[in-house]
Amino acid sequence: MHIDHIGIAVSDLEAAIKTYESLLDSECYKREVIEGQKVETAFFNTGESKVELLGATDHESVIQKYISKHGEGIHHVAFEVEDIHRELERLKEKGFRLLGEEPSEGADNKLVAFVHPKDNHGVLVELCQSKS
Amino acid sequence: MHIDHIGIAVSDLEAAIKTYESLLDSECYKREVIEGQKVETAFFNTGESKVELLGATDHESVIQKYISKHGEGIHHVAFEVEDIHRELERLKEKGFRLLGEEPSEGADNKLVAFVHPKDNHGVLVELCQSKS
Repeated sequence: MHIDHIGIAVSDLEAAIKTYESLLDSECYKREVIEGQKVETAFFNTGESKVELLGATDHESVIQKYISKHGEGIHHVAFEVEDIHRELERLKEKGFRLLGEEPSEGADNKLVAFVHPKDNHGVLVELCQSKS
Repeated sequence: MHIDHIGIAVSDLEAAIKTYESLLDSECYKREVIEGQKVETAFFNTGESKVELLGATDHESVIQKYISKHGEGIHHVAFEVEDIHRELERLKEKGFRLLGEEPSEGADNKLVAFVHPKDNHGVLVELCQSKS
């Protein structure tokens, strides 16, 4: 299990891309809209792990709701696992609450699932598995 | 530049270590008190990047203040750089505000410095450089 990416909720994706290009001294290498989540993503390479900026495409987006409540900032951390179904079973047995029973389609050609932040000391944890 | 670690502010370090041992299926491999910051840290290996739990050792700790204001959660993301002084100069020239002019002693035998979260869309960014 390694950190695949951190996801950062931003209110202005264009401005945030410029900021992170300066901060990381690296170009945004990919943008992708996730229709189901009403989110547009922008990715930066930072070694083995990536930085993912998350902007809302709609006021009903989870990102818009998050920013309304918490402001901009780190929204989640994602760990890449080899077998997401097996990992979700392991976590359920350990007593972690999952947001949704089954993995869903995420950005970056991955299956994703989330563990409730209340069970992780305030951290929204994403698990992801690359689709073959 | 790669993600060295994410730092998670927790109110009960002992409980959080147990939680993250379960979550990550990995043992905490190191604990370290940073006297200057009134913080105790606990580290987990997750690939190239680490997870660092941060507990306050004193009610005056920055971590205690953070939790009082924001609750538990991801406190910062740290990027390892080759030359922290050069990187701080580069960021200052780009207009980023730094928290402190000079790097200080951090956990894990590193020099550390922070970029103001207001300049990074709400993200407290740490830069760190391993001391040789």
